[in-house]
Amino acid sequence: MTYLKDGAEIYRQSFAIIEAETDLARVPAGLRAAAIRMVHASGQPDLVEDLAWSDGFADAAASALRAGAPILCDSKMVASGVIRSRLPRDNQVVCMLGDPRLDALAAELGTTKTAAAVELWCPLLPGAVVAIGNAPTALFHLLELVADEPALAPAAVLGIPVGFVGAAESKHALATNKLGLEYLIVHGRRGGSAVTVAALNALCGPDGRTG
Amino acid sequence: MTYLKDGAEIYRQSFAIIEAETDLARVPAGLRAAAIRMVHASGQPDLVEDLAWSDGFADAAASALRAGAPILCDSKMVASGVIRSRLPRDNQVVCMLGDPRLDALAAELGTTKTAAAVELWCPLLPGAVVAIGNAPTALFHLLELVADEPALAPAAVLGIPVGFVGAAESKHALATNKLGLEYLIVHGRRGGSAVTVAALNALCGPDGRTG
Repeated sequence: MTYLKDGAEIYRQSFAIIEAETDLARVPAGLRAAAIRMVHASGQPDLVEDLAWSDGFADAAASALRAGAPILCDSKMVASGVIRSRLPRDNQVVCMLGDPRLDALAAELGTTKTAAAVELWCPLLPGAVVAIGNAPTALFHLLELVADEPALAPAAVLGIPVGFVGAAESKHALATNKLGLEYLIVHGRRGGSAVTVAALNALCGPDGRTG
Repeated sequence: MTYLKDGAEIYRQSFAIIEAETDLARVPAGLRAAAIRMVHASGQPDLVEDLAWSDGFADAAASALRAGAPILCDSKMVASGVIRSRLPRDNQVVCMLGDPRLDALAAELGTTKTAAAVELWCPLLPGAVVAIGNAPTALFHLLELVADEPALAPAAVLGIPVGFVGAAESKHALATNKLGLEYLIVHGRRGGSAVTVAALNALCGPDGRTG
């Protein structure tokens, strides 16, 4: 069977195809590596058409990561996808799913366990980098938390949940937030853990902003 | 902020939208839950148009899982996404990335570390369920291994790598294999760890074939 086996060459050819097929003109320099990695993780150049961000997002995320900010993830898949060797300060990677307090907390708050897990981020939340790649309710709950208590604001939010109920709405809510939250989103139904962590790894890594 | 917080109702509405928007007519009953979960994980009903499978795949995968077959994953994200509570026999979930032998083995084989990791599956491979959601080279290497040594054949292969170099080709090679391998693929560039593990969880779980 004949196929390419050289990892470096596979990456080189992949990124050449992505750059040829993807319109990156409107993507600022600080987000270009993230956009390319998101296309790579989804196999879809047109994902970039739905990408939106706040002007300060790339600098805020990169600065926070360089300063050692924790990375707060809404799913185990996002947390497991973070490439540890790229982390500029061996940053803490946190996912609270599986915490024994969650069932009771979700019942008390009248929401999903994934949203309740966001509540457990609170001690780490100020100045953190948030990566939500799964649950719209987690993103909605984050917005509620920060609206109630502005001191909890994270430095930057990758808000890229996927799906059919609440995903587009929660991302729109983040992109129109009046809380000063710096954000990166993919409008619409697309998103997910692979795309989210691809962006995060690019923001961390040698070909990202902090490299 | 007004949004749906009831997890069960979110699932119900999500699956109602998916069933309304997705053409599942050609998907056999044993794969329908997997197809729906893959659409759910990608946010894309048209993913089903690229779905392909061997006639025996659903039964082979479900039987193997029920019999306690190990699940061999090409990435940590796939392995971390397996919902353990759905596993019918507390099946072993294996990802060999991170194994200290990989660097030397990849150099010896002249391939990627992800493909070399497939080599380390060998003792577990006969009758296993394979879930490849990331690396085309892993899928190609699996096909080479089984061609050389038919006794290594797994019971079923979810071959759903994503990307621009080798992904479509490796999935086409699996779908046209003359080795008798039962398969589930997504033709083209789309795929990835989230979609792959969504299918796997459906095949394991209470609303899947084994439930």
